Amino acid sequence: MSQLPSLSQLRDPNAFLRRHLGPDTAEQQAMLDSLGLGSRVELIEQTVPPGIRLNRELDLPPALDEEAALAKLRGYAEQNQVWTSLIGMGYHGTLTPAVILRNVLENPGWYTAYTPYQPEIAQGRLEALLNFQQLTIDLTGLELANASLLDEATAAAEAMALAKRVAKSKSNLFFVDENCHPQTISVVQTRAEGFGFELIIDAVDNLKQHQVFGALLQYPDTHGEIRDLRPLIDHLHAQQALACVCADLLSLLLLTPPGEQGADVVFGSSQRFGVPMGYGGPHAAFFASRDEYKRAIPGRIIGVSKDARGNVALRMALQTREQHIRREKANSNICTAQVLLANIASFYAVYHGPQGLKRIAQRVHRLTSILAAGLERNGITRLNKQFFDTLTLEVGGSQTAILDSARAAQINLRILGRGQVGLSLDESCDERTVTKLFDVFLGADHGLDVAELDREALISGIPDGLLRATPYLRHPVFNAHHSETEMLRYLKQLENKDLALNQSMIPLGSCTMKLNASSEMIPITWPAFANLHPFAPKEQAVGYSLMISELESWLCAITGFDAICMQPNSGAQGEYAGLLAIRKYHESRQQGARDICLIPASAHGTNPASAQMAGMQVVIVDCDDAGNVDLDDLKAKATAAGDKLSCLMATYPSTHGVYEEGISEICEVIHKHGGQVYMDGANLNAQVGLARPADIGADVSHMNLHKTFCIPHGGGGPGMGPIGVRAHLAPFVANHPVVPIDGPDPQNGAVSAAPWGSASILPISWMYIAMMGPQLADASEVAILSANYLAKHLSGAFPVLYTGRNERVAHECILDLRPLKALTGISEEDVAKRLMDYGFHAPTMSFPVPGTLMVEPTESESKAELDRFISAMLSIRAEIAEVQNGNWSAEDNPLKRSPHTLADIIGVWDRPYSIEQAVTPDAHTRLHKYWPTVNRVDNVYGDRNLFCACVPVDEYR
Amino acid sequence: MSQLPSLSQLRDPNAFLRRHLGPDTAEQQAMLDSLGLGSRVELIEQTVPPGIRLNRELDLPPALDEEAALAKLRGYAEQNQVWTSLIGMGYHGTLTPAVILRNVLENPGWYTAYTPYQPEIAQGRLEALLNFQQLTIDLTGLELANASLLDEATAAAEAMALAKRVAKSKSNLFFVDENCHPQTISVVQTRAEGFGFELIIDAVDNLKQHQVFGALLQYPDTHGEIRDLRPLIDHLHAQQALACVCADLLSLLLLTPPGEQGADVVFGSSQRFGVPMGYGGPHAAFFASRDEYKRAIPGRIIGVSKDARGNVALRMALQTREQHIRREKANSNICTAQVLLANIASFYAVYHGPQGLKRIAQRVHRLTSILAAGLERNGITRLNKQFFDTLTLEVGGSQTAILDSARAAQINLRILGRGQVGLSLDESCDERTVTKLFDVFLGADHGLDVAELDREALISGIPDGLLRATPYLRHPVFNAHHSETEMLRYLKQLENKDLALNQSMIPLGSCTMKLNASSEMIPITWPAFANLHPFAPKEQAVGYSLMISELESWLCAITGFDAICMQPNSGAQGEYAGLLAIRKYHESRQQGARDICLIPASAHGTNPASAQMAGMQVVIVDCDDAGNVDLDDLKAKATAAGDKLSCLMATYPSTHGVYEEGISEICEVIHKHGGQVYMDGANLNAQVGLARPADIGADVSHMNLHKTFCIPHGGGGPGMGPIGVRAHLAPFVANHPVVPIDGPDPQNGAVSAAPWGSASILPISWMYIAMMGPQLADASEVAILSANYLAKHLSGAFPVLYTGRNERVAHECILDLRPLKALTGISEEDVAKRLMDYGFHAPTMSFPVPGTLMVEPTESESKAELDRFISAMLSIRAEIAEVQNGNWSAEDNPLKRSPHTLADIIGVWDRPYSIEQAVTPDAHTRLHKYWPTVNRVDNVYGDRNLFCACVPVDEYR
Repeated sequence: MSQLPSLSQLRDPNAFLRRHLGPDTAEQQAMLDSLGLGSRVELIEQTVPPGIRLNRELDLPPALDEEAALAKLRGYAEQNQVWTSLIGMGYHGTLTPAVILRNVLENPGWYTAYTPYQPEIAQGRLEALLNFQQLTIDLTGLELANASLLDEATAAAEAMALAKRVAKSKSNLFFVDENCHPQTISVVQTRAEGFGFELIIDAVDNLKQHQVFGALLQYPDTHGEIRDLRPLIDHLHAQQALACVCADLLSLLLLTPPGEQGADVVFGSSQRFGVPMGYGGPHAAFFASRDEYKRAIPGRIIGVSKDARGNVALRMALQTREQHIRREKANSNICTAQVLLANIASFYAVYHGPQGLKRIAQRVHRLTSILAAGLERNGITRLNKQFFDTLTLEVGGSQTAILDSARAAQINLRILGRGQVGLSLDESCDERTVTKLFDVFLGADHGLDVAELDREALISGIPDGLLRATPYLRHPVFNAHHSETEMLRYLKQLENKDLALNQSMIPLGSCTMKLNASSEMIPITWPAFANLHPFAPKEQAVGYSLMISELESWLCAITGFDAICMQPNSGAQGEYAGLLAIRKYHESRQQGARDICLIPASAHGTNPASAQMAGMQVVIVDCDDAGNVDLDDLKAKATAAGDKLSCLMATYPSTHGVYEEGISEICEVIHKHGGQVYMDGANLNAQVGLARPADIGADVSHMNLHKTFCIPHGGGGPGMGPIGVRAHLAPFVANHPVVPIDGPDPQNGAVSAAPWGSASILPISWMYIAMMGPQLADASEVAILSANYLAKHLSGAFPVLYTGRNERVAHECILDLRPLKALTGISEEDVAKRLMDYGFHAPTMSFPVPGTLMVEPTESESKAELDRFISAMLSIRAEIAEVQNGNWSAEDNPLKRSPHTLADIIGVWDRPYSIEQAVTPDAHTRLHKYWPTVNRVDNVYGDRNLFCACVPVDEYR
Repeated sequence: MSQLPSLSQLRDPNAFLRRHLGPDTAEQQAMLDSLGLGSRVELIEQTVPPGIRLNRELDLPPALDEEAALAKLRGYAEQNQVWTSLIGMGYHGTLTPAVILRNVLENPGWYTAYTPYQPEIAQGRLEALLNFQQLTIDLTGLELANASLLDEATAAAEAMALAKRVAKSKSNLFFVDENCHPQTISVVQTRAEGFGFELIIDAVDNLKQHQVFGALLQYPDTHGEIRDLRPLIDHLHAQQALACVCADLLSLLLLTPPGEQGADVVFGSSQRFGVPMGYGGPHAAFFASRDEYKRAIPGRIIGVSKDARGNVALRMALQTREQHIRREKANSNICTAQVLLANIASFYAVYHGPQGLKRIAQRVHRLTSILAAGLERNGITRLNKQFFDTLTLEVGGSQTAILDSARAAQINLRILGRGQVGLSLDESCDERTVTKLFDVFLGADHGLDVAELDREALISGIPDGLLRATPYLRHPVFNAHHSETEMLRYLKQLENKDLALNQSMIPLGSCTMKLNASSEMIPITWPAFANLHPFAPKEQAVGYSLMISELESWLCAITGFDAICMQPNSGAQGEYAGLLAIRKYHESRQQGARDICLIPASAHGTNPASAQMAGMQVVIVDCDDAGNVDLDDLKAKATAAGDKLSCLMATYPSTHGVYEEGISEICEVIHKHGGQVYMDGANLNAQVGLARPADIGADVSHMNLHKTFCIPHGGGGPGMGPIGVRAHLAPFVANHPVVPIDGPDPQNGAVSAAPWGSASILPISWMYIAMMGPQLADASEVAILSANYLAKHLSGAFPVLYTGRNERVAHECILDLRPLKALTGISEEDVAKRLMDYGFHAPTMSFPVPGTLMVEPTESESKAELDRFISAMLSIRAEIAEVQNGNWSAEDNPLKRSPHTLADIIGVWDRPYSIEQAVTPDAHTRLHKYWPTVNRVDNVYGDRNLFCACVPVDEYR
């Protein structure tokens, strides 16, 4: 009888790690060999400065395999309770159509895509976003919309900032209707403080007492009241101020839209268009304004342009507003959106169409009317005269009994002070909901019958003068896909246009495009995570609470910080939140005058923008020729700032892709001058398990959970940017006006709408860390190995601009295209677009250095895929040589004319290179061709002829 | 204040119906207009013979909307209890890798595909199936494998039939090891009875006492014993008989494969390779045999051939064996497979690779060894000397206590008589499972420690002589996709090659390719449906029981039958099961001599094959020129048969796509002669809500749940073919030896392995009926409308071969290509392949009439898609005209050279038509091009050079 291997020999402690990493052990060794290295240890020793090395295992629980991690998380999920939440306040029950749930939200073709900076390989999601803009335009009654913002509350803050930017009024006062949602008011307060605006929060009737640059109104307001906005708007316009209106998207199907009443900005949440509440997010805010303010509108705008063949092509318009945010002058740091969620909302509209949506709105309103009538007849006073879906009720001394009864029925109502309760109905409600509410408010023997009430000619809660008269969603796209088969195929057609991670490497340098594992994604659509209202009582969210606090403790272990603030729902918002904490910290020590923020010249544009928003003055620190912070200049500027020095913002490894040797000294200099160090966490994937921001000297840092911790990019959002802080900053991070958070000062305002930001995607990062455990360090090491492998094999063809110790790069490398451009006219853009013909997404172009390409392979790409990329790049280099030696002209060559489309090759072919060379330049493309659907897009035309609504169908022909 | 629409006005009683139907009301009206009809009522009056019309609403509960139906079904699911099932017997716990679950099983790109009859648009799933065959070949040690069969037990019956077909022995005896699984024995018994084989079920030691044509052995056997098969096989071979071995796939990773021991057929279930148990199915059986028997192997075989360019192309080989089953001579009616499940199993092997699989097998075996050792030391006798994962234990009087204790631990064991219990471990088991089992068997104070036992040098349960010595899965495909990123991209690459319903209409005439709604699909992967063992105690399957009996009652209401037998897991198996019931019925009335089965000439080839398998003689009834049964011939043959007449098999509407007027009379004739009527349910979609088989006169009929009731085709399976019977036949339908079914005679054998067939996909049909309710009739009407709309608009270009009353067709129509072929040489195949260039799947070719195309649009295609199809067909007709008028030669034209691939257009283009004409012949293809990945596949070459394993990678280059 033979010997058996034992269980311990058969155990696979790295079950998930092996799935997460691209190269296996043998492939890693081959890569190391080609770098002349014996081991990963040697590589790390050569790469990461010894002074900052962690040199021990991360203090994390051992890795769980996929099944075990899912089982543990399911155990948490089961501790959440999904009640009927009628709390409203911007979050409503909704029904995600199954065809959208399965084919968009649960489909890697949609969720692993990157932001559509490269329009030629992104026409699918660009079209979905254009639909979102059309939906916004139609429902708000305004002229121009963006492709979503982070949430309703931050959209309000952006509206205020826009008003300040464009209003002719010289006032520094901004008026806020006290009947806006409390979280919206809080975020606006926080933002106003940073900008130094004066805020008046008062009843709208008192608006006329003030000279303001703008006002924030809510329609219907937080208590459900619907007010004719025209008098208020006229008054604002008379004083050259802007009217910003937060609106409920579903109500706009029945109400006269604010745009038609003269509003200048209309925004709100599109959550109730099919996006689960998810305990607060992610959801897409919509944002519309006037055409004249188009250059001041925050966020991304999708515009219609044309491609090199003159065909219609969509693109992100006016990108100069965004990607190259005007640094010190910026008053928004918005550089992301909620694409996946905006797409779901737009598909919800495509699926239901105008009649279907109207029916939903009418039904919600009718249910509310029946409820209102029944309650009124039984002596319950309604405080809002008009209503769409929300009732605020005076219940006096019965409040406690009513709330008890609601709890018994597993219904969450909004609890207001002074004997009042509120409730909002939604599309998931029906006759039974209303009956239950009668029981709750009136006791079981109320004798009311919903069907009977329904037969009565009840009056509407919407005044005649505010009934919507204008049509909407008349574009064919909203009227052609109402059968599930048609909807499914429309979704597939759009998906097929785009290149996402499920097809090939996305070799960006600005974002970490690693594996978004299925096991990480599966929990987010579990009802127990998806269907919780963010303001549900905490005892219903025990599972969330356990998951979040565990994730926080793990992030502390990884970063060395003492506390985490989960609220920021993007990286840039993390920066802003972190700087606010620094500001408050200085103020608490009576050093409120410290307002100078030092930022290296190599920083991402969001850094100075965030500083600006936090009320700081930006002072730029020079970089030396090697791309590192000029230590002398830093010292000089820190000294010059003196007791005005607030902080330094630094990215580590630097945006140049190297581990700066001087980082510890840099931090010391700042601390010595009384400043704080903010570490931009964009490149944290090169630190995890190897070094920790807090150990290096950072006081605060954000973590891009959508980069380092596997939340997929969703085609341009969602993201999450929680911040870690050292203990002395912990009291100063964001809190929340509705759901108090343990830890920070209860007086602190919010930076985003929901207490824990986009809570429903936190399970993704939780799963990742749970399945990796201390082996997270392996991921960082392989990411560094892969970057050095690329750098080594590409540097012969394209010089690597910056390297660190031992000529190694960190987790990404910058390829300098400027010398070749000078010789041949072939630019970094040509190379980027040409890569599409090879089936690759373009690398990051011209950031942080114009004329370069930045590449970050991450740890999840296999050696085969890295080799394919290298081979494509070398092949492109050979193509450039053909231009160089005159075989192809400077204009008519496969680089300048890239990417190539089907349209190119079905017409006359009269180019100096072959069709084969054009579209199948290598073996892989012959077997697995991805087709860009438009040719090179004309950016200038698009910006000069800005058109941001759905394309008339004829245009496509 | 304005009036509100009431809730009743706002109610959408057809919420799902509107999603299910392609054309909306206005589009239906436009279609009716073009047919000169005022309403659907008028259409149905013109089409369906009045004598058979139902003329009332179906007696079904009102339609539920998607949310309500899901909620109701979830209520059932929650009544199932998912325990740890160690029952074994061919069903084992398994872990479906999340990346496969989400991207294959839950992805319409995979599950909505049709059977890969058209290789040019099916290379993705053909490759996956080739991998499945390679997996089978490698693990069984045989030369040739098929692309799956329905389940292990029916595979056993097929093995027996194959043995009879090819064995040189003239014996009529087949030997069955009594230690095969009981359901396998039962299915083989049933089949043997039909064929008239004599069966000996005995201990293998007694094999030598018999002269047989073959024997069925099991390895390891049902009690876990592992026996050296060589002596038995040698004995069989000595008498020119075949050795058929049922094997456990996981065990073959460690055991000497039966093929290496000389077995002629090796088969079994691939369920434990990642496919959930699903309360019985669907799962794919694997089936391997010798090369010399290749033309006798049942089911589909994927072979490697080449395309018109000489490139490697996969296809279903030797199709003449299958699709044109040799009718009266057939001894198998197999015409389907379990493609989706075979693909999952093959991807499971691709994902784990040889090392990973071996580790899983070793771990299962090691856990079993530890368990065996611990029990043995504590005095529990094991009855099987050798073992892989299964132990049969002698527990004597403790049986009740042990079983009670197991129940308390929520563990299902196999209950055997005589104080024995059995158990099988699987990959979902771990150390905790073993500890729990020690507790169960030995009580809590057993003092055993798994880790301690694991440190011992335990002997293996596998004898040295049977340890596997040969390698397996050395092909690169099993060694290259082990990171999740690589796996995801491999799945996507394959998916992208194929054309499924998520991209365009599949206008078949032989299958009903309607919407497979997301809401219908979602429940099947709920753990409460997916993870039940089929032999789990019924009290753990209360939800299944409620769902199945409700579905049965609905199917009765729809068909008019009195009882349903859910066991047949394909349509052809339904035929066979129905005919067996007829046979038993006659026997019960002492009319066992009735064995003549009348079958119209137009019947599908499975009909005579099934009759043959049920021991009947087939007599063909002529059809007249209009395609209808020749009533005079029928009467003559019924009379001739006299008291030998068993039954008629008829399809309604006929396979010619018309409602035969004489159907009632036909049934009367048969009944008058003492026969029974079997109605083939393939075309039931044209009857639902309009007429009922039982009312028309059928005594029994199968329902293709994968056609009429929305189970997706899965790329060629799963299917489900339950039968409905009138009361007098109800006692004679299949029962089950392990789980007795209420209703039929307990003595009746099984026709497939699991009591309710592929139970886990029944929720799909349940959801469909629950959401449609009595409006199912609307689906039938729109299906008929769409078929007539196509017929009307295509008949000018292509004559419609058969029509019924008022020149209407039923739900499909046959287009006659023969006249054009005679004129131009352009064949139905050319048109079918050319449609691929337009982005369509080919219609059914040459069935039921050679030289024709049959088209069934179903109710789920929109008018826009129907119009696009019409336009493509008319455009193709115009292309044929170019050949006709000599502008293009008979050989060099876009029809003969279709479909066109990328390879065509990147080379030299010297054809008389343009590249544009070739690949983008209409506006749709310019916007949404689908690319066939190979050119016209050479069928003859493939069959002449049969090669059915993975293609060496070099071949692709």
